Amino acid sequence: MTQFDKRNASMMMDLYEMTMANGYFHKNEKIENVVFDVFYRKNPDQGGYSIFAGLEQIIEYVENLHFADDDIEYFRSLNLFSDEFLEYLRDFHFSGDIYAFPEGTVMYQNEPIITIVAPLIDAQLIETAVLAQINHQSLIATKASRIVRAAGGRAVSDFGARRAHNLDAAVYGARAAYIGGVVSTATVLAGKQFGIPVSGTMAHSWVMYYKDEYEAFCNYAHKYPDQVVLLVDTYDVLRSGIPNAIKLSKEVLEPIGKRLKGIRLDSGDLAYLSKKVRQMLDDAGLTDCKIIVSNSLDEYTIKSILDQGGRIDGFGVGERLITAKSDPVFGAVYKISAVRENGVFEPRIKVSETVEKITNPGLKDVYRIYSENGQAIADLLALRGEQIDMTDSYRYVDPEKPWKNRHFVNCTAKSLQQLVVKDGKRVGEKPSLESVRDYVKQQLTTEIWVEEQRFENPHKHYLDMTPDYYEMKMNLLYKTRNN
Amino acid sequence: MTQFDKRNASMMMDLYEMTMANGYFHKNEKIENVVFDVFYRKNPDQGGYSIFAGLEQIIEYVENLHFADDDIEYFRSLNLFSDEFLEYLRDFHFSGDIYAFPEGTVMYQNEPIITIVAPLIDAQLIETAVLAQINHQSLIATKASRIVRAAGGRAVSDFGARRAHNLDAAVYGARAAYIGGVVSTATVLAGKQFGIPVSGTMAHSWVMYYKDEYEAFCNYAHKYPDQVVLLVDTYDVLRSGIPNAIKLSKEVLEPIGKRLKGIRLDSGDLAYLSKKVRQMLDDAGLTDCKIIVSNSLDEYTIKSILDQGGRIDGFGVGERLITAKSDPVFGAVYKISAVRENGVFEPRIKVSETVEKITNPGLKDVYRIYSENGQAIADLLALRGEQIDMTDSYRYVDPEKPWKNRHFVNCTAKSLQQLVVKDGKRVGEKPSLESVRDYVKQQLTTEIWVEEQRFENPHKHYLDMTPDYYEMKMNLLYKTRNN
Repeated sequence: MTQFDKRNASMMMDLYEMTMANGYFHKNEKIENVVFDVFYRKNPDQGGYSIFAGLEQIIEYVENLHFADDDIEYFRSLNLFSDEFLEYLRDFHFSGDIYAFPEGTVMYQNEPIITIVAPLIDAQLIETAVLAQINHQSLIATKASRIVRAAGGRAVSDFGARRAHNLDAAVYGARAAYIGGVVSTATVLAGKQFGIPVSGTMAHSWVMYYKDEYEAFCNYAHKYPDQVVLLVDTYDVLRSGIPNAIKLSKEVLEPIGKRLKGIRLDSGDLAYLSKKVRQMLDDAGLTDCKIIVSNSLDEYTIKSILDQGGRIDGFGVGERLITAKSDPVFGAVYKISAVRENGVFEPRIKVSETVEKITNPGLKDVYRIYSENGQAIADLLALRGEQIDMTDSYRYVDPEKPWKNRHFVNCTAKSLQQLVVKDGKRVGEKPSLESVRDYVKQQLTTEIWVEEQRFENPHKHYLDMTPDYYEMKMNLLYKTRNN
Repeated sequence: MTQFDKRNASMMMDLYEMTMANGYFHKNEKIENVVFDVFYRKNPDQGGYSIFAGLEQIIEYVENLHFADDDIEYFRSLNLFSDEFLEYLRDFHFSGDIYAFPEGTVMYQNEPIITIVAPLIDAQLIETAVLAQINHQSLIATKASRIVRAAGGRAVSDFGARRAHNLDAAVYGARAAYIGGVVSTATVLAGKQFGIPVSGTMAHSWVMYYKDEYEAFCNYAHKYPDQVVLLVDTYDVLRSGIPNAIKLSKEVLEPIGKRLKGIRLDSGDLAYLSKKVRQMLDDAGLTDCKIIVSNSLDEYTIKSILDQGGRIDGFGVGERLITAKSDPVFGAVYKISAVRENGVFEPRIKVSETVEKITNPGLKDVYRIYSENGQAIADLLALRGEQIDMTDSYRYVDPEKPWKNRHFVNCTAKSLQQLVVKDGKRVGEKPSLESVRDYVKQQLTTEIWVEEQRFENPHKHYLDMTPDYYEMKMNLLYKTRNN
């Protein structure tokens, strides 16, 4: 089977990764192991959480990472790199380990979603490709999750391909949106590549091609009698589109025992029109005919339409989903947190004038802490390998109020990072896209506080620390010369 | 030479294009020629113009359009399409003609940038792929043009890959940004694929790996003595980064006859810091050392920094360029404008309650009108093939004030659309990326009013009509039943 995406993405990097790698190479520092963490500092749209997506593509990328002859020749043409380094690249493969949250995990600020433990050059070269995947797919999965929440159980479909930032953004954006909870995509390539359900019926051009709206509807109904969803706003929704739809139902569909499945509104005041249309359809006995709407929708417009009593069964969401228009940048970063010296990982910290920008140093574990009733009440940073025993009351440190005496009582802790790549090769089974999507839904319905999911001033999830981890970080801060 | 992008993008479509095509197929409507126009209704960021980009990828896409066996099997699995139609797809190639503005043309609202004249099915199937290319690349080229303008002659580089909406957005975004005027990209893959100059030196991880900032700077200088650009904000710009940079220059570079080429600031108050840093560098005799800044920049922040007297020689622009953050949707649409009946193209119009949303019907020509001094004063819609003779005063219609008696005097008219695809094959030479970039610059410096290029309330470019075109449109509007 041919595949859309058999590309070698190895050249997807910033040039500085190569200038640094070439610099490290000649210091014989290429064999030193380092630790890089991927984390982000704020949720999009002032939200209370984000959805982690893109891990599968990151694993595929690192497994496939290699430089072709023409890549090497391109690098040579830049006159920046030594011949020895270019020869070294010829057989280069990523040889490190990657720990990551399972794809689909609800994630929060400042915790290491992905941790790379790898030789210095290996870790440095994958920075951009890793970030581009997590940033794009997490952005869209998070946006989709918000839109699906606003739709309150009504179906949301991805219609965004034409406004996506090129092909990948449409295809991987559809994948991420599906993870985030949309039920289908209009993008055929995403349907084929990932098995996502596809949907779509007609454009305005179908109606305009036939000059007469009713003739256009009839032609469609003859072709697809079991799935007639009519676009009714080409001329005039209430005076032409809906009357023609009802006429079609009475004169064409009902005589052959079929029902009008739905109509779609793509312009105008969707709250007002949907109520009028519902009434007209109901009066005609078409109570089972669904009303689908589209036109620059997002969580805010959907919430507003429903607050006004809009009678809507499904939403087609395009440009504002596929570009995450209201906040189109997901800001995950890739920061060095430890360097192995004489067999020991020495933590590194990036200080800053702004307290939130001080990084969390060292090789560490992340735990999600659950209360007795299964709610995720906090996340906890620990030294890597530290024993976390919650059978009794467990003391922790809230780094924003370290003077307080805090304890987790009757709680359980789940380690979030899993080893997904070992010595450059995938560990474990590739999860199905459906299972990732189900995992998102399960967390949001059973584990994650609704207070973190609301749009206005959501509760900020706690990121606490074990006493030992907190002490290590503080000691390192004190020691840093330029603090 | 292997290439990054040899993908078959034929499945990049919305499902409704297939359901419509399958519907048309059985009506024997597949051989009917139709006309679709690509146009947009508003410039991003309330700007006065946009830059047309993405044409080269559209031509490559339509030339390559075909369905592989597994594509056909995927379609079959959807149980929507007839076997005859699926067999027809097996040998399908795009067989139509495409007219387009040259890539890089400064463009405006509501004029047909691209016109497709093709059999109905051919024209319908390419909708999404065409729109995704023009929308993405024009968005980024336009954003880049605005940022470059704000930078006032200082170099602007694309640093955006990690925040791009996946790989294509980074690579084709870098291409579009280069068309729009940036001087280089950090994205290696874009440099390799399109020959765009690449730039990049070091990340914070380089400095942090070495523990000591000066040691990190020394190691870089030993490796790249001719291109030392130091990232100086890892610890403290004024107390550590710049003193260490000056020390490096004095103790390492000057003894071997080299100069410190530049420093980069990636955080903090860039206006304030750049002035302080300039003074410190100048006091140390490093007047030739460039100051490069980065950190969430766009045309607004750049203008603000320069208005405050920031002493900056170059800008690295990332997330806000590569996502066009302040307005990340370019809204080009694909609308049917004529159907050939009995050998004659009958115009089609989409009416709307909003006057701006009424389409411009029919197969038409677009002219750019130049005054004696070479300024582009208006664009003009004409019937396709209509003779435009400007040797004398030429009467035209301003559709917003059709009662006025308007004339072009001492003007010249240039036809903007060119035939770029004939019977599915490229016509003419592929222009170089450099020539497209030069064309943008030439228009903005010599043809396009500065009043259209300002950020606040720019002048709105006129889209006028020939008297015959205006009459045709009005007649069609009167005739449309549901008007």
